[in-house]
Amino acid sequence: MAAIDNLIKAFQILPGVGPKSAQRMTLHLLLRERAAGMALAEAMNVAIRDVGQCRLCRNLTEMEVCALCRDERRDGSLLCVIESPADILAIEQAGGYRGYYFVLNGRLSPLDGIGPEHLGLEQLIARIEQLKPKELILATNPTVEGEATAHYVANLVNSAVGHISRIAHGVPLGGEIEYTDSGTLAHALQGRRRIV
Amino acid sequence: MAAIDNLIKAFQILPGVGPKSAQRMTLHLLLRERAAGMALAEAMNVAIRDVGQCRLCRNLTEMEVCALCRDERRDGSLLCVIESPADILAIEQAGGYRGYYFVLNGRLSPLDGIGPEHLGLEQLIARIEQLKPKELILATNPTVEGEATAHYVANLVNSAVGHISRIAHGVPLGGEIEYTDSGTLAHALQGRRRIV
Repeated sequence: MAAIDNLIKAFQILPGVGPKSAQRMTLHLLLRERAAGMALAEAMNVAIRDVGQCRLCRNLTEMEVCALCRDERRDGSLLCVIESPADILAIEQAGGYRGYYFVLNGRLSPLDGIGPEHLGLEQLIARIEQLKPKELILATNPTVEGEATAHYVANLVNSAVGHISRIAHGVPLGGEIEYTDSGTLAHALQGRRRIV
Repeated sequence: MAAIDNLIKAFQILPGVGPKSAQRMTLHLLLRERAAGMALAEAMNVAIRDVGQCRLCRNLTEMEVCALCRDERRDGSLLCVIESPADILAIEQAGGYRGYYFVLNGRLSPLDGIGPEHLGLEQLIARIEQLKPKELILATNPTVEGEATAHYVANLVNSAVGHISRIAHGVPLGGEIEYTDSGTLAHALQGRRRIV
């Protein structure tokens, strides 16, 4: 059973996949999806071989410079710093933002051994010098590490950008105040805006 | 982004993986697990190439006959019919059963186009003729399809085996009667056993 056991173990490198789902994936693949399984292995090899980081923004791309950075119709006065390429997809889907991005591909996390040197901050400084944005938006996650990362980046580029902002924290749409945690509620009250 | 999009789509052949988790797997792989990802692709290719079905019991194996069927210390008077190789692992972990297995690799499901011809029933008959078990245990799942499959197999091999049994249905250990569905409770009462 070596080949089967190896595959069950190998599947567990994927996020959210434990021993039970790895076993289910392995059996499903071998019993019902052999052709699609070979296509999946090939797609993995191709992506691992071809996909690298954009020279300008560190987004994942097959080119030297990604499609977003090459798009000259975007608003060069805005640069948005996020933790992961997935955040770009989410923000683009939300619509409304037309500036450029910079991807940290991580967040400060001393416990996991992730320090400033892993976040491509020299590239961020180079990008700021080249683009000269009017505003830098820090859109790291509202977690302890994300907040620490936002503060670190803000201090680092303070002299290079006139206006540095942080995304708003508050009650999410469709949420209920009754069930909102107190940290979020405190932010929502502190960040209140006059409407009339 | 073709290579990335292809990989996100390819991951969705795995059971329980939708667009969001496929995207998470793809980014995790490309950002953090490239070496392990290549190992996973290789493990998939090796398993798809080398793993076939046991000639005797249809379990997944790299050999012609699987390790369980080759084990002569097992009890040849018992043959247990199950739906999937995963059921063998579960029953072996439970302990207590020392007979042989036969894997249907499916269950009767007309809606999915799975008929008797997909369940290797000629192999089951050949295995019964060769092993001559005293008892055939039908351990298909307690679902509509599993019950139908058990009945179909029981009728088919009725003349070849003297004793055909079905696993017990009842309240699972640790379960609460209050929250047990009525079908299970009816089975639990019907299958009651005298203890004193």
